[in-house]
Amino acid sequence: MFNQVAIVGLGLIGGSMGLALHKAKAAKRIVGHDLGRGVSDRARKSGAIDESFDSLADAVRGADLVILATPVGPMRTLLQNLATVLTPGTIVTDVASTKSQVISWAEEFLPANVAFVGGHPMAGKELSGVEAADADLFCNCIYCLTPTAKTRPDSISKVVALVEAIGARLRFLDPSEHDGEVAGVSHLPFLASIALMDTAANDPTWGDAALLASTGFRDTTRLAAGSPEMYRDICLTNGASIVRWLDQYVDNLSALRDRIAMHDKSLSEDFARVQQLRQEWQSNQNEK
Amino acid sequence: MFNQVAIVGLGLIGGSMGLALHKAKAAKRIVGHDLGRGVSDRARKSGAIDESFDSLADAVRGADLVILATPVGPMRTLLQNLATVLTPGTIVTDVASTKSQVISWAEEFLPANVAFVGGHPMAGKELSGVEAADADLFCNCIYCLTPTAKTRPDSISKVVALVEAIGARLRFLDPSEHDGEVAGVSHLPFLASIALMDTAANDPTWGDAALLASTGFRDTTRLAAGSPEMYRDICLTNGASIVRWLDQYVDNLSALRDRIAMHDKSLSEDFARVQQLRQEWQSNQNEK
Repeated sequence: MFNQVAIVGLGLIGGSMGLALHKAKAAKRIVGHDLGRGVSDRARKSGAIDESFDSLADAVRGADLVILATPVGPMRTLLQNLATVLTPGTIVTDVASTKSQVISWAEEFLPANVAFVGGHPMAGKELSGVEAADADLFCNCIYCLTPTAKTRPDSISKVVALVEAIGARLRFLDPSEHDGEVAGVSHLPFLASIALMDTAANDPTWGDAALLASTGFRDTTRLAAGSPEMYRDICLTNGASIVRWLDQYVDNLSALRDRIAMHDKSLSEDFARVQQLRQEWQSNQNEK
Repeated sequence: MFNQVAIVGLGLIGGSMGLALHKAKAAKRIVGHDLGRGVSDRARKSGAIDESFDSLADAVRGADLVILATPVGPMRTLLQNLATVLTPGTIVTDVASTKSQVISWAEEFLPANVAFVGGHPMAGKELSGVEAADADLFCNCIYCLTPTAKTRPDSISKVVALVEAIGARLRFLDPSEHDGEVAGVSHLPFLASIALMDTAANDPTWGDAALLASTGFRDTTRLAAGSPEMYRDICLTNGASIVRWLDQYVDNLSALRDRIAMHDKSLSEDFARVQQLRQEWQSNQNEK
């Protein structure tokens, strides 16, 4: 049980975190802070937080757990600003999409008397904002924690308690291991989707071809509708892993291209192999 | 009003065609033929056809309209087999995903006393088979017809009547124009999806990374679950267009890769531009 939890950033994730902690009765008091106009008020009215503060310093004062529920973009400045206002003994965790860079900022800026544990809940939905927040968003979702050799064990167990309270499934990873894996299953897909949309829509035939685009096009390009700033910040903080995955993807596409150009009839064998991989993944997902 | 319509291939599209024609009372009699065990019987019981024939010759005898509702793969053999059994005056149309190759086969094999009009309804769903057939599958969907200079005008108007009867929206295209456009909005997406699934699942980290893959991965790789044979046959019959699109896609991905490697902060401007394109396409879809 936490005495006081402070949530910084009250969007879909931060708002859902507040609702889930309340539902689990895991915190005596939850306070919040968000720079967006009216966001904190809406979070309070929705029951995600008990009290909101306009000042970051007021919000985190006396908290035993501070959850940084912002995208990776503002994280550096946020950690700098937190450095002088955190109460000694506070445990800080985050939810950003990339971990190595965030952890190095935390090590650089946060004082020795507070602990930082990197985290990343693999949860989301189409909609964003506190209006879309949901007490059950994290139920059964994978929640990565990425402690390092420098992370204090007692702070890890506190954040593990948070993960368990909101019903998520804990997974420990090394930060670079995390960043490599999400680059493949999360960052590569959004870049593939953006490039696909860009390729189709910049062809001279697009005006007509757009009318023929159907559900397959819709699903493969859905991620291209996501936040440009968030995507950029992910690229800026996980570039090396992403480049490695893009190189492999381009290699695979080029091999496919050459076989199509040669009218290779055995393509169906590879398509069947990949179909099998997809079906295995899907059935494992359904069993979750 | 058609006197007798013969549907060859009673899967999702063929079955839905029968149900839609019956619903519209656009045919006095609908007969069907399918090589799959029990498929014709199920089509008859579902009301998609009035009678089924085990023999292709019996099925198409006396029909004023023959609808070839098979994928592009079996189309060459099917047209060869039809050549000697069609009643003079019959109009033949198809629903295959690529048009130039199918039309050249029709011109090669069909006798001069029958007419062929290439067609492609832009309809589908996750499920396949006559069990998934739906009388409203074509409602408001785009239905491409690709007549050539050699196509007889009276046969075109008959197939236009079919398109209108089932509630679809007619679009005339040149066959090569059709093939170029669907290569971009339909074939490139399934190849991008297959390559993405293949890339992710063949990495040494996949066992762990699969657990982190979420809704974005699910949607971008959904098409990788499609029919390997159909995909191969599309590649074999539309290779030139597909290769052109793959080259452009790889160029765009490579440019993105280089900018990520250079930590280009202006990436968000391009992501925003593509986001805008995606939103425009989506809102046009919603207005349909």
